[in-house]
Amino acid sequence: MATDNPMQLGMIGLGRMGANLVRRLMRDGHHCVTYDVNPDAVKAMEAEGAVGSSSLAEFVAGLEKPRNIWIMVPAGIVDSTLEQLVPLLDADDTIIDGGNSYYRDDITRSKALKPKGLHYLDVGTSGGVWGLERGYCLMIGGDTPAVLRLDPIFKTIAPGEGSVELTAGRAPGTTASQGYLHCGPSGAGHFVKMVHNGIEYGMMAAIAEGLSIIKGAGIGLQENATHDAENTPLRHPEAYQYDINVGDVAEVWRRGSVVSSWLVDLAAAALAKSPDLQEFGGRVSDSGEGRWTVEAAIDEGVPAPVITASLFQRFESRDLGVFTGKILSALRSEFGGHAEQK
Amino acid sequence: MATDNPMQLGMIGLGRMGANLVRRLMRDGHHCVTYDVNPDAVKAMEAEGAVGSSSLAEFVAGLEKPRNIWIMVPAGIVDSTLEQLVPLLDADDTIIDGGNSYYRDDITRSKALKPKGLHYLDVGTSGGVWGLERGYCLMIGGDTPAVLRLDPIFKTIAPGEGSVELTAGRAPGTTASQGYLHCGPSGAGHFVKMVHNGIEYGMMAAIAEGLSIIKGAGIGLQENATHDAENTPLRHPEAYQYDINVGDVAEVWRRGSVVSSWLVDLAAAALAKSPDLQEFGGRVSDSGEGRWTVEAAIDEGVPAPVITASLFQRFESRDLGVFTGKILSALRSEFGGHAEQK
Amino acid sequence: MATDNPMQLGMIGLGRMGANLVRRLMRDGHHCVTYDVNPDAVKAMEAEGAVGSSSLAEFVAGLEKPRNIWIMVPAGIVDSTLEQLVPLLDADDTIIDGGNSYYRDDITRSKALKPKGLHYLDVGTSGGVWGLERGYCLMIGGDTPAVLRLDPIFKTIAPGEGSVELTAGRAPGTTASQGYLHCGPSGAGHFVKMVHNGIEYGMMAAIAEGLSIIKGAGIGLQENATHDAENTPLRHPEAYQYDINVGDVAEVWRRGSVVSSWLVDLAAAALAKSPDLQEFGGRVSDSGEGRWTVEAAIDEGVPAPVITASLFQRFESRDLGVFTGKILSALRSEFGGHAEQK
Amino acid sequence: MATDNPMQLGMIGLGRMGANLVRRLMRDGHHCVTYDVNPDAVKAMEAEGAVGSSSLAEFVAGLEKPRNIWIMVPAGIVDSTLEQLVPLLDADDTIIDGGNSYYRDDITRSKALKPKGLHYLDVGTSGGVWGLERGYCLMIGGDTPAVLRLDPIFKTIAPGEGSVELTAGRAPGTTASQGYLHCGPSGAGHFVKMVHNGIEYGMMAAIAEGLSIIKGAGIGLQENATHDAENTPLRHPEAYQYDINVGDVAEVWRRGSVVSSWLVDLAAAALAKSPDLQEFGGRVSDSGEGRWTVEAAIDEGVPAPVITASLFQRFESRDLGVFTGKILSALRSEFGGHAEQK
Repeated sequence: MATDNPMQLGMIGLGRMGANLVRRLMRDGHHCVTYDVNPDAVKAMEAEGAVGSSSLAEFVAGLEKPRNIWIMVPAGIVDSTLEQLVPLLDADDTIIDGGNSYYRDDITRSKALKPKGLHYLDVGTSGGVWGLERGYCLMIGGDTPAVLRLDPIFKTIAPGEGSVELTAGRAPGTTASQGYLHCGPSGAGHFVKMVHNGIEYGMMAAIAEGLSIIKGAGIGLQENATHDAENTPLRHPEAYQYDINVGDVAEVWRRGSVVSSWLVDLAAAALAKSPDLQEFGGRVSDSGEGRWTVEAAIDEGVPAPVITASLFQRFESRDLGVFTGKILSALRSEFGGHAEQK
Repeated sequence: MATDNPMQLGMIGLGRMGANLVRRLMRDGHHCVTYDVNPDAVKAMEAEGAVGSSSLAEFVAGLEKPRNIWIMVPAGIVDSTLEQLVPLLDADDTIIDGGNSYYRDDITRSKALKPKGLHYLDVGTSGGVWGLERGYCLMIGGDTPAVLRLDPIFKTIAPGEGSVELTAGRAPGTTASQGYLHCGPSGAGHFVKMVHNGIEYGMMAAIAEGLSIIKGAGIGLQENATHDAENTPLRHPEAYQYDINVGDVAEVWRRGSVVSSWLVDLAAAALAKSPDLQEFGGRVSDSGEGRWTVEAAIDEGVPAPVITASLFQRFESRDLGVFTGKILSALRSEFGGHAEQK
Repeated sequence: MATDNPMQLGMIGLGRMGANLVRRLMRDGHHCVTYDVNPDAVKAMEAEGAVGSSSLAEFVAGLEKPRNIWIMVPAGIVDSTLEQLVPLLDADDTIIDGGNSYYRDDITRSKALKPKGLHYLDVGTSGGVWGLERGYCLMIGGDTPAVLRLDPIFKTIAPGEGSVELTAGRAPGTTASQGYLHCGPSGAGHFVKMVHNGIEYGMMAAIAEGLSIIKGAGIGLQENATHDAENTPLRHPEAYQYDINVGDVAEVWRRGSVVSSWLVDLAAAALAKSPDLQEFGGRVSDSGEGRWTVEAAIDEGVPAPVITASLFQRFESRDLGVFTGKILSALRSEFGGHAEQK
Repeated sequence: MATDNPMQLGMIGLGRMGANLVRRLMRDGHHCVTYDVNPDAVKAMEAEGAVGSSSLAEFVAGLEKPRNIWIMVPAGIVDSTLEQLVPLLDADDTIIDGGNSYYRDDITRSKALKPKGLHYLDVGTSGGVWGLERGYCLMIGGDTPAVLRLDPIFKTIAPGEGSVELTAGRAPGTTASQGYLHCGPSGAGHFVKMVHNGIEYGMMAAIAEGLSIIKGAGIGLQENATHDAENTPLRHPEAYQYDINVGDVAEVWRRGSVVSSWLVDLAAAALAKSPDLQEFGGRVSDSGEGRWTVEAAIDEGVPAPVITASLFQRFESRDLGVFTGKILSALRSEFGGHAEQK
């Protein structure tokens, strides 16, 4: 399964994502020159067959022109990386930001790099720790000549058709069915990736809420300790007498159900390892894309109640709503003399 | 301001609400016979001029026929109270449930009491600890003859026109502008009260969220400690440099603003007493009406996203979403290798 | 791929779901006796090899004891079907409700049938029109002996392991990895199916919202006709200049992305056939399970903001929120003199 | 009730809000110089006693130094107004933006005006068409000397203490209890006004949803026409047999209830005039502040599910979710063969 068109690619950033991309590229016959601020990460990739560099200058010098450089670093340090890198480059070189940049930064950057004759591609990269084997879904923004030039690289990184059935009646003409897509001009790749993550938040939340409701189906078995004016008793405890194994439920949904999905696969895997998930506290991070998706929805005037609810649910999970709760308790105390319950 | 039509009313349940109703009635010239399972509560009301009773039998014996009996006990013990009370009553007596019963129970009860010739009124009573002075807003369900018979009682308990301006162009014909209303047949009173509380949840939440956003307006002053792939840095810290006193804001909104309301009055009062509300933990109870309002919305096919969000916000405040959060963290760990942050 | 344990099953209801179940069973070597109120439906199945019946009596007579009878009719007519069927049955016969009954009805029915010695299984059946080929995911509730007796039937209807990878580290012991699961006592099957559909609503909504946001990414290209106090102009039109093909986006997400799922497959298929979906008006039905899922969440005190938002979104799509909108417009007119815009 | 400190104020923009502010100021003894692009608006104010101007130059010339100029124009044309106005001004003059500007624009403008020695105040002004009589709630941002200088103007425009009871235990020290408040530096006034409007959206929505649920309480009286797999029948029609007058309900809540508020007053007024609100279509505008409030909540990491739901509800009311609905219908067609219902 070696590529027909071996290319050379420079990779800056050898964290989990960057290193796995290099591995997947080399496996398929591409040549990789690598750089990371951590020399140990470089050494490790050298051991796997990549060319290492001890400085950005050495890194750039090791690349044939026109150069193809993929940056895979946290969104917060892309700009400082570019500041150091750009002076070393020549016209017609291409920079690829494969991280999770805000798409508006891509628009700004590509505009700034254009007078220098540099191409800038924004590539949303989905697949996480599984991408090395499964391939990464790539959402690409930027100018067409650069996208075409890099096609062998994208083809290798993406999953390809694989065992997923073709969509009936789909017209040929794009690479979408290979798992990578040129979505539009600068920013379009990260825009689509941003929304992808927004959808991911919503799908995850739907699954998690549902499994929680199934886990709670035995609430009628608990004694209703509190029969006071502050709490309403469960009206039909006889309807909540179940003890359903949520891990088995996630597993059964993997085949034939409407909700079958990679996320349900992963839920089944997580629950197989740890039926009560006791190693997790339930505090859920959010890394920006969900927030930006909601802001885009608002700018566009598109109602997005589901994705937004999933974002705020994560905020709540991190106790960011405590002051709101304090005001609510204070109001209940003011009008009803209700003391807050512990 | 004594009533023109002094009546006799029996009150069962001398908690905060029941006791204050008795006080308000006696002030206006009505005669009250009282009963509570706690003899001290009865003694206290006797000291204020009410007739006390040491048993339900004595209580019933102390009432002139046709009797008017107001029950003011937690929703969970209305039925057991009725079980003891009803055998002691005679045809044409009226029972009033002034608590927070589920309106469907009213339908059941009034149907069960009808063959005995008993009237049953469901009276949603809003006003909390302020009702003694401010008057209680009464939402009444049940048959018209009983409602009319009790009119002097309702008129006294309700606020009356007071200093609230009349609604321009409003046709006369109901007592709504006196602060009490016969809403319809059995259950209608508690149905309207239930929805009232649903609205209350939503209004409270809107105020509390808004004040939290104002309190958070200084977030740009904090150093952004975390610049990693798990957290997105604030893009415009310069726009969040405020230190705004939320108590002053609540106070200024009390006059002339569109959000001016009793709840804003109470928020200002709470924040005047305790600017940081440090005595509250932010765990917000819900007492049934919000849940039932959402269920009614769903049964009717009426979208109620705002009231529902305010209900779930209370659930979240009591950490009822923890298992959902655990699944979300587990999924993030599965696909991205993300460790949950502390 | 013929079954090792051919059984006889009676099927009542030969709509799309019932007929396809019969086909899938017969293909695998089981014997089916069929009945439908529509004689043409029966004839059609006879042509495909099933035994037909012209009456319930004939249907029952055609089954060996202990009989196994699968009812596949709309939830609203299960009870009337049972009324006619049950008197014809004998102790130890099993009735399977494979439709979308409310799980509490299952509890009621199984209790009612128990004194007659009848088994009652509730089987949530997911898979839609694709189930014939793909297999149906089965969520089963009821007593264990009946579930075990029907195992060969369930095994045939379900997808089996198929090409879906096994979950690493999963303990054996249930049939979940075959696509069918005994979830618990009566009602447990439909409870899990109910929640499955709630999750389905949420996942669908997340995908649909996301694709709408991508479709709206060109809003900055439109002239902002309205610069008045009623509308806010888009602050950054330069960030919304894209024309992204949503069908291509759905397609690319099918491989390697975190959101890859059967629903994304179907979205890609629908958009391949009809890029603008102009044959749809956007009015989305809901068939009960979403509503019940939300009610279960509320009963259990589990926050379910995402699933609930997806339910209310469907209500909104059918214009069920119009009176709410009228009140909002009326309020805006009252306080601001704002005329409603067309 | 004339002011003790008559001042001169220049007003640019004589729409409903600007004209009423001038009227309220003149009534209290202040002197107003006015300008509007529409000469008829200027003439009308002259007839009421204001000084009119036929050009910005004449307007500025008519003001004593240091000048105090209030701009009351749509947010979209504040900047072009400033461009023309600023060159005509002198150091120590004060510009007040009383409209609904985005607070970040205030930060930008005050920074730009500072080198010229100009003061810039942002004043969120709430009260709508009722402000002339009721007074306007003022939320003020900007530098303290200018705020203090304008105090007599603010005092006149604001409602004053009026008949609203003082908040018990409130420390003196701010003007909040007079209905105006210096909230902080530039932008703070419009920030607080922005959130005020976000709260307004949420409170309006809670009231509107609740009244819709009450209006829908008779749904059990309708025949359930559709008993098919696409629709679930109402399980308890006997619980929805009411015909409740929503106008009476709004009226009764005005006195003594927890939800008593100006918005409930206005709902009662609207329903008194038009019980079915048939002159409204239910399409609800949003003018920017709600959107910005949600974006602030997201930037701050404060969960705001209620305010956000009220924003999206307005989007839905204007049919902005149609493409989302089309995708949902298309998916239902794909997996279930469900035809969209009309």
